[in-house]
Amino acid sequence: MENLPDRSSAPLPADASAQAEADLWNVQGIVGQLAEIRRKWRTVNAQHAEYGVESFPSRVRLAKVVEELCGALFPLRLGPDFVRLHNEDTFVTQTLQIAFSRLQAQVRLELTYSSPDDGRDINDDRATQIVLALGRELPEIRRLLDIDIEAAFRGDPSARSLDEVLICFPGLLAIIHHRLAHKLHLLGAPLVARIISEISHGQTGIDIHPGAQIGEGFFIDHGTGVVIGETAILGDNVRIYQGVTLGAKNFPLGPTGALIKSLPRHPVIENNVVIYAGATILGRVTIGAGSEIGGNVWLTHDVPPFSRVYQAREQNLVIRPSSEDEAPA
Amino acid sequence: MENLPDRSSAPLPADASAQAEADLWNVQGIVGQLAEIRRKWRTVNAQHAEYGVESFPSRVRLAKVVEELCGALFPLRLGPDFVRLHNEDTFVTQTLQIAFSRLQAQVRLELTYSSPDDGRDINDDRATQIVLALGRELPEIRRLLDIDIEAAFRGDPSARSLDEVLICFPGLLAIIHHRLAHKLHLLGAPLVARIISEISHGQTGIDIHPGAQIGEGFFIDHGTGVVIGETAILGDNVRIYQGVTLGAKNFPLGPTGALIKSLPRHPVIENNVVIYAGATILGRVTIGAGSEIGGNVWLTHDVPPFSRVYQAREQNLVIRPSSEDEAPA
Amino acid sequence: MENLPDRSSAPLPADASAQAEADLWNVQGIVGQLAEIRRKWRTVNAQHAEYGVESFPSRVRLAKVVEELCGALFPLRLGPDFVRLHNEDTFVTQTLQIAFSRLQAQVRLELTYSSPDDGRDINDDRATQIVLALGRELPEIRRLLDIDIEAAFRGDPSARSLDEVLICFPGLLAIIHHRLAHKLHLLGAPLVARIISEISHGQTGIDIHPGAQIGEGFFIDHGTGVVIGETAILGDNVRIYQGVTLGAKNFPLGPTGALIKSLPRHPVIENNVVIYAGATILGRVTIGAGSEIGGNVWLTHDVPPFSRVYQAREQNLVIRPSSEDEAPA
Repeated sequence: MENLPDRSSAPLPADASAQAEADLWNVQGIVGQLAEIRRKWRTVNAQHAEYGVESFPSRVRLAKVVEELCGALFPLRLGPDFVRLHNEDTFVTQTLQIAFSRLQAQVRLELTYSSPDDGRDINDDRATQIVLALGRELPEIRRLLDIDIEAAFRGDPSARSLDEVLICFPGLLAIIHHRLAHKLHLLGAPLVARIISEISHGQTGIDIHPGAQIGEGFFIDHGTGVVIGETAILGDNVRIYQGVTLGAKNFPLGPTGALIKSLPRHPVIENNVVIYAGATILGRVTIGAGSEIGGNVWLTHDVPPFSRVYQAREQNLVIRPSSEDEAPA
Repeated sequence: MENLPDRSSAPLPADASAQAEADLWNVQGIVGQLAEIRRKWRTVNAQHAEYGVESFPSRVRLAKVVEELCGALFPLRLGPDFVRLHNEDTFVTQTLQIAFSRLQAQVRLELTYSSPDDGRDINDDRATQIVLALGRELPEIRRLLDIDIEAAFRGDPSARSLDEVLICFPGLLAIIHHRLAHKLHLLGAPLVARIISEISHGQTGIDIHPGAQIGEGFFIDHGTGVVIGETAILGDNVRIYQGVTLGAKNFPLGPTGALIKSLPRHPVIENNVVIYAGATILGRVTIGAGSEIGGNVWLTHDVPPFSRVYQAREQNLVIRPSSEDEAPA
Repeated sequence: MENLPDRSSAPLPADASAQAEADLWNVQGIVGQLAEIRRKWRTVNAQHAEYGVESFPSRVRLAKVVEELCGALFPLRLGPDFVRLHNEDTFVTQTLQIAFSRLQAQVRLELTYSSPDDGRDINDDRATQIVLALGRELPEIRRLLDIDIEAAFRGDPSARSLDEVLICFPGLLAIIHHRLAHKLHLLGAPLVARIISEISHGQTGIDIHPGAQIGEGFFIDHGTGVVIGETAILGDNVRIYQGVTLGAKNFPLGPTGALIKSLPRHPVIENNVVIYAGATILGRVTIGAGSEIGGNVWLTHDVPPFSRVYQAREQNLVIRPSSEDEAPA
């Protein structure tokens, strides 16, 4: 969602300045009712309101930061087209300096929101430390992404080059966002991390919670509809296809009847597992190393290593000549 | 789809002004053929062509209007970052005045398109009435959205705050768009409504027809692939997951062999129903209150209240050790 | 992914020019490590690096070109709102001239990348020939799209007009992109074609490889999650719904153990076939003309013409009264 109305390019209607005093469209009553709703909401949700009601990270600004980090990680491919071999390092230097400053501002907003009582200076310093720590991880993130790209290239007959994978495959876009978001999640900026995940979800249809742990050489093909939950753990060289869900089976309630947050409740997928399109694996189950899970399989229990799990489909299909009555779906 | 080529930032190539008289890229033949196709199309589809061929609402401009309405509904979260507690009402006032003016122009285009014979003044007045009526509903829409946000927060263990739900959950983005679009659909601007729905569909992968009736406390988790049809009716506190379809089973044909439009053909989902990922419910069936529909279930008949419907899956799964022959899918 | 950081609207922080010499955010170490990773990568992947490491088509620029081509194909609907009947041809002329120039630059980048040894002049000329050939096909593409629009209108009870289909239906957006991309794929610009496909995939959730051959009157309803593979062949008047996969069953390996690229491995769908939501058809199988494939069906073998294939679902559904124990999913 773009949340920055662009005033410069979309000024008030020509006659609006003259009518500024007037109540164009009779909005005053609506404005008053909306203000009253906000006032009541903030009273009822005081714990939230106190948490820095004026502070919240911006999706639009974080989208910009991620673009810049992508450019710094892959300057000739994801940077602007003035980047050449001779000015790569200059570009990366300037871009990182800008991106880190902007990211620090967004992390500071999160910390002010979640810990308003800690004060401005402490949150400012914490935000700086988080961004510095992310920066130190960038070379490792680039290293992991190179392995992801190679895994995709090896796994998809339609890929013509590593560069095509990087530029064209939504799975790569999702994993770039995830590897950045997961690090920020661990470093103490879970909200900024979640927003970054959702930026990617909106662009790719791939929904990976920033808490999910994902090993090396991860490949998602096509990807639309993939869901990977907060506490999922994936080993190395895991490959998954569109529509795969690694989800929770049920949600334990605490003594007050409210959901218990953040309990381990998503699958563990060991090394070298392949999960085909539309498969659903739910709960804290373990899929043993080297297994293949067939398309549309529904699994809620452990599977030993080197298993092949698929639906016994044949017996359930009905094939008959077409007639003029009702369509099957 | 962005449909406004930005001329200012992307001028003609350097040598183009010199060649402006020339036929750069030999386009004249193509232009002529395209014009001929349009001329013929308009002759064949005269009923459409007469319906204000020059008038049609703009997806880009409606996206802007919806952004502004989102900002007015949640100024500190979905508005621009200069909004603070002290200037909230000023921001909401100005934003609504701008958004309503722009929306009126788009609704007027729809009315000119669908009822060109009614004349400019009548359509202009109708458009104004529709926008004023939408405005009066905004406080109620905000009230409903607050209940939706609380339902999502209660239903998802990964949500840390109500604000996180509002900013990060695509289901919320979809329901904001739907509640605005549904009202416009009822008020007589079904095309503007449909465009708003599709803006949300493109961003979230959640496809809710503006005609669908949805009660209070609606929560869609993850959401990619959800489809809710035109005549679906959902009660209060309904929760659905990614990939759920509430669709039509078949499409009755009228005496001319053409589809009958707008007949009730989608499910009725009563209060407090949960529908898990990938379930498909088709036709004008009723799912009784308090029922749970399991993942991937395919339902084309009524279900009584407080039912649990799920697949008897175990017997159909084949699990065997991996070998080197063909992959299962 | 937007890859053009917008420097004008987002200048360096106020104090940055003063610190330009300093190492803001201590990035020098990171920059050095990233440079070293790139250097090693280019050594290991020399065959790629030589392929014009500085040349690669831009997703952002191609998105612009496609917007312009859409405007030229449907000026009053997908063009900017200053277009009227009286200036349609002028608009189409200027827009095609700009779009072709820009597209030629992107195709040239692809050719330089894939065939750097052929030299600047040869690649420049080839790119021009490809764009001229695409231009000659535009009237035919418009003709096909008109038939697609009519097929959608006939097939969906919620559609009120042909224009609504064009503006609102993501399936139309996908097929516009595909018909352009497929032509570019055949003309020798497969990378530019693939990028155009992925622009559409990101916007619609519909993933059609540019290699897929698709006949007249193609209609995709809702569309999120649809995947159509590189070597699929679809006849005329095929209709598919959300979540349908036309995929590969397995990937033969060549003598070196690497995947064999581009072998026929996706389904052939004959004329007048309907495939309902969530169906999965895998491998080089043929679905005979006039068949209907039911929702969620999983098919890996041929089906004769005029078949109806659906799941025998009833026997596998368990319906029982709700209790307080664990949720079904």
